[in-house]
Amino acid sequence: MSLPFPKLTPQEAAAHVEHGQTIGFSGFTPAGAPKAIPTAIADRAEAAHQSGEPFKIGVITGASTGPSLDGALAKANAISFRTPYQSNADLRARINAGDTRFFDMHLSMMPQAVRYGFLGPIDWAVIEACDVTAGGGVVLTSSVGAAPTFGRQAKRVLIELNRKHPATLLGMHDIFEPADPPHRGEIPIFHASDRIGSPIMTVDPSRIVGIVETDREDETGGYDPSTPETDAIGNHVAEFLAAEIEAHRLPSFLPVQSGVGNVGNAVLAALGRHPQIPQFEMYTEVLQDSVVDLICSDRVKFASTCALTLSPPALDKVYSDLKFFRPRILMRPQEISNHPEVIRRLGLISINTAIEVDLFGNVNSTHIMGRQMMNGIGGSGDFTRNAYLSIFTCPSSAKGGKISTVVPLVSHADHSEHSVQVIVTEHGIADLRGRSPHERAELIIENCAHPEFRPELHAYLRMVKSGHTPHTLRAAFAFHCRYLDTGDMHGVEWGPLASTPSTR
Amino acid sequence: MSLPFPKLTPQEAAAHVEHGQTIGFSGFTPAGAPKAIPTAIADRAEAAHQSGEPFKIGVITGASTGPSLDGALAKANAISFRTPYQSNADLRARINAGDTRFFDMHLSMMPQAVRYGFLGPIDWAVIEACDVTAGGGVVLTSSVGAAPTFGRQAKRVLIELNRKHPATLLGMHDIFEPADPPHRGEIPIFHASDRIGSPIMTVDPSRIVGIVETDREDETGGYDPSTPETDAIGNHVAEFLAAEIEAHRLPSFLPVQSGVGNVGNAVLAALGRHPQIPQFEMYTEVLQDSVVDLICSDRVKFASTCALTLSPPALDKVYSDLKFFRPRILMRPQEISNHPEVIRRLGLISINTAIEVDLFGNVNSTHIMGRQMMNGIGGSGDFTRNAYLSIFTCPSSAKGGKISTVVPLVSHADHSEHSVQVIVTEHGIADLRGRSPHERAELIIENCAHPEFRPELHAYLRMVKSGHTPHTLRAAFAFHCRYLDTGDMHGVEWGPLASTPSTR
Repeated sequence: MSLPFPKLTPQEAAAHVEHGQTIGFSGFTPAGAPKAIPTAIADRAEAAHQSGEPFKIGVITGASTGPSLDGALAKANAISFRTPYQSNADLRARINAGDTRFFDMHLSMMPQAVRYGFLGPIDWAVIEACDVTAGGGVVLTSSVGAAPTFGRQAKRVLIELNRKHPATLLGMHDIFEPADPPHRGEIPIFHASDRIGSPIMTVDPSRIVGIVETDREDETGGYDPSTPETDAIGNHVAEFLAAEIEAHRLPSFLPVQSGVGNVGNAVLAALGRHPQIPQFEMYTEVLQDSVVDLICSDRVKFASTCALTLSPPALDKVYSDLKFFRPRILMRPQEISNHPEVIRRLGLISINTAIEVDLFGNVNSTHIMGRQMMNGIGGSGDFTRNAYLSIFTCPSSAKGGKISTVVPLVSHADHSEHSVQVIVTEHGIADLRGRSPHERAELIIENCAHPEFRPELHAYLRMVKSGHTPHTLRAAFAFHCRYLDTGDMHGVEWGPLASTPSTR
Repeated sequence: MSLPFPKLTPQEAAAHVEHGQTIGFSGFTPAGAPKAIPTAIADRAEAAHQSGEPFKIGVITGASTGPSLDGALAKANAISFRTPYQSNADLRARINAGDTRFFDMHLSMMPQAVRYGFLGPIDWAVIEACDVTAGGGVVLTSSVGAAPTFGRQAKRVLIELNRKHPATLLGMHDIFEPADPPHRGEIPIFHASDRIGSPIMTVDPSRIVGIVETDREDETGGYDPSTPETDAIGNHVAEFLAAEIEAHRLPSFLPVQSGVGNVGNAVLAALGRHPQIPQFEMYTEVLQDSVVDLICSDRVKFASTCALTLSPPALDKVYSDLKFFRPRILMRPQEISNHPEVIRRLGLISINTAIEVDLFGNVNSTHIMGRQMMNGIGGSGDFTRNAYLSIFTCPSSAKGGKISTVVPLVSHADHSEHSVQVIVTEHGIADLRGRSPHERAELIIENCAHPEFRPELHAYLRMVKSGHTPHTLRAAFAFHCRYLDTGDMHGVEWGPLASTPSTR
C-alpha cells in the first residue's frame, strides 16, 4: 500500500525549512536521530552563508545526537539555540565559543516545557521512523526521546523512513504522553516492565509534509574496553550493594539505572558477575552493550529504556532476534523513562558518573573548570534526586594524574550534597548518608581521593575549624586555578590564600 | 474513659531517655512540636554534664521546632546529631561550632530515609497530640510532619497530650504513609483537596510508655509587617503570573506553594489583591497568617499543608471556627505535602526565598558565605525541582545594603540553574526559561541586582569572553571575600584577580 505523503529527497525536505525556525528532532543519543534531513539542512545553511545570507535554526532534540545532526549543523554554524543535552565535539566548540546559545535542562522536563510553551513554538518535527501508516501512525526506531511530543506540537512534520531499522520493531516502544496540569493523572508504571501506552506514535497526517527514505546506520560509537580503574570502580559498587543487601537496607534488589559510558559498562559488568547480586531489572534512559550481554546471560530480566545506544554489532544482535528481546526490552519517552514519579515509586538504584566531586558531596556533571560546557546534565538529575540509593562514580584523577577529581569545591554544582548519597572511585567508597560535612570530607579524602592529593585536601580542611561547611572561599578554587595556571593541580600554595581575614 | 497508659510528669518521661539514643519528635516548624518532654530532657542533660557525665541524643524532627525543643536541647549541648531543617539561633550556633553534627536533607525524603534504615534505629518517638485512644490512635495537633513514621518506627513512644489544642481537630489531618519499594503504589492525590488517608495516626499501644499532659502554646513567632521592598517583590510576582495567564502559558491558575517568612507573606497578599489572579488553591508545606486572611476573604479556596505555622491570634481564629476551616484546610505528612509525584502532577506554582542567587541562576538557600549554616534546605528542593513554574524571591541587598544578594557565583549551590526558572527582587523579574548563561546574566543584572552593584557585576562578566558559563574562578568569590575582609561587598578590586592565566 502506498502512502499518501510526498516522497522527498533530503534536499527537497531541507528546502522547506527557513532561517529562524525551531525544529524538534527525534533521537535520544545518536540512536533514532534523523541523519539525511539535518545533513541537507546543514548544506543549505552553508550555501546561504556563502551567499552572505543568515541561516540558523533552533534545535531541540531528545538528548545528544550524532555527527549527521548536531555535528553537521554545528560545522555549518547553523544552530542558533540548542537544548537539552549534547555530546558532539563540533557543537560543544560552538557552544563554548558563544556561536550557539545552549540551555541545559533536566531531560524529563523538556517535553513538558515544550508543551507549556516555555521554549516557544516548534515549527518542524523531523522524526526517524521504521514504518509509517497512511493515517499518521509512526513506528519509531532505536529510541523514543521526545518524538511523540514534537510530533504533536510541531506545525509541520518531516519523516525520515530508515530501512536499516526493521518494521518489526513494532511493539518495542511504549508511547505515553501525560496530560498537563491541572488534568494530569498518575503515570501507571508500578514495575519496570509495565506497558502503559501504545506501540505507535501518531501525528496529524495533514501536517506530514513528506517522507525521506534512507538506509543510514545509527551513529553510535563503540565503547572502550574496561581498564583496571573502571573494573575497580565497578567492583566497589557491586560490593557496596551486596553489603546493603546483607544489612537489610535493600529490601530486595531494586531496578538499576546506569549512566552511559565506560565506567557505566564496567559497573554493570561487575553487578552481573557478583555472586551476591541477584538477577535484576533495569529502569534507565540508555541501554549500552553490557546490558545486551546481561540479558543474554539471564542476569538482567528486563530493561526499560529510552534508547538502544548500542554499537552496530550489538544492535544487529538485538534486531536479528526480536522474538527473544521483545519481551525483555521496552523503549519509553524520556518524560517517562526519567519521570520523578516513577523513579521514586520503583525505588531505583541510580549510578551516574561525575566530572568532579567536592569534599562535602556536591557533584559537577557538566562543566570543565566551571566555564566550558562538556555535555550537559542529561538525566542525572532526574535519577539522582529521586532514587532509592544514589551513587556517583568517578576515577579519582584525570589528565594523566594532573587533575584531582576530588576538589575542595566543585566548579559547577549540578547535584547538591542533599541528593548525593554515595561516592565511589577506584580507591573506595564514601557513604555520605547521615554524615555531617566534616565527616563527609574525611570519608571522601580517605576513601576516594587519589593518595597524591590527600595531603593537600587535608590541608584545605585544616584552614578553618569553624562553620558547618568549613570552606575558605578565597582558596576554594585553588586546585582549579593551579591547573589553569600550570596545567597541573599538584603543588597548590596555600600560604597567601590562608593568611587573610576571609579564611578565619 | 481513662487511658491504659501511665500518666507521667515531664521529668519521669525524660528519665526514660538515655545518652546516645535517637528521638524522632513530632512537629513541623514550632507547630505541633513537643515542649514539656524535650525541656525536661534538656534539664537532665545539664544535670548530667554538671556531674561530668556525657548526655547527648540524636534528634530527628519534621523540620524546625521551637525554643522548648531545639532551643532547650541546644542550650544544654544535648544534641549529638540533628536532621533535617532547623531555625533556632542556639542550635544554629551549636551546628556552626561543630558541637552538633547536622545533616541537611530534602524534607520529603527524610521519612523514607528513616524507614529504609539510612539514619539508624529510632529509639523514641515523642509526639504531641490533642487526643489519644486506648488502642493507640493519636490525633495530632497543629502539624503532621513525620510523626506517623516516627510513631511506627520507634521502639518506644511518649505522648505529650496538649490541652491547648482542641480534640475537635479530629478531621483536620490526612495521614498516609506510602509503602516502600518494590511495593509502592501511586500517591492518589489529583487535586489539592483530595483526602487519601486517615484522620488519625496509629501507634502500637504496647510501645506507648506514657503520656505527659500539658497546656503549652505553640511557639510560633509572629511575622514582621510588610515593607515597601517586600511589597514590591510581591507585586512583581503577581504581575508576572498575571502576564503568564495572559500569554496562555498558565492553563488555569494552578495551586500555589509559598515559602515561609515575610517575603512569602507579602507575595501571598499581592496574589490575593491582584485583579487578574483568580481565586486559587494552595498545596504547600507551611500555612502562615496571610493564608488565613485569604481563606476568610474567599481568595483562597483550599489549602493543603503540613503545618499551621500561625501566630497565636491566627491559630485561635482557626480553632474558634473549625466548622468553617475544616473543609478548607487539610494537614498532611511532609512526605506527602512535599512529594515530587504530587507536586509535578498538580503542577504547582512554587515561590521560595533565596539567601543569594548568582548570575547564571543558581540559588543558595542554606549557607552564609559558604560556611555558616543558616536554616537548611527545607522543602525548597522538593518544590523547586518539580514545580510547573519555579520562582525564587530575594531582596537585592542585605545588611543595610552592604551585601549584594546577586553575586557572580553562589557560595553554596542548593538549587542549580537547571531547576530555577524565575528570579524576582524588588527591582524586577528575570525570566530565565530557555536562556543561555550569558543571557541569564544580563537579565539578572539589569532586572534584579541592586543598581549599586550592577557595574561590578558587569565588570565580572566582561573578564572573559569565552566559555558557556563565563566564570573566572579566581574572582568568582571576590564579592564574598571583600565582605569577609571589610564588612562590605562594595569596592571589589578586580585588577590583580583578572591578570592571571586562570582568567583567560
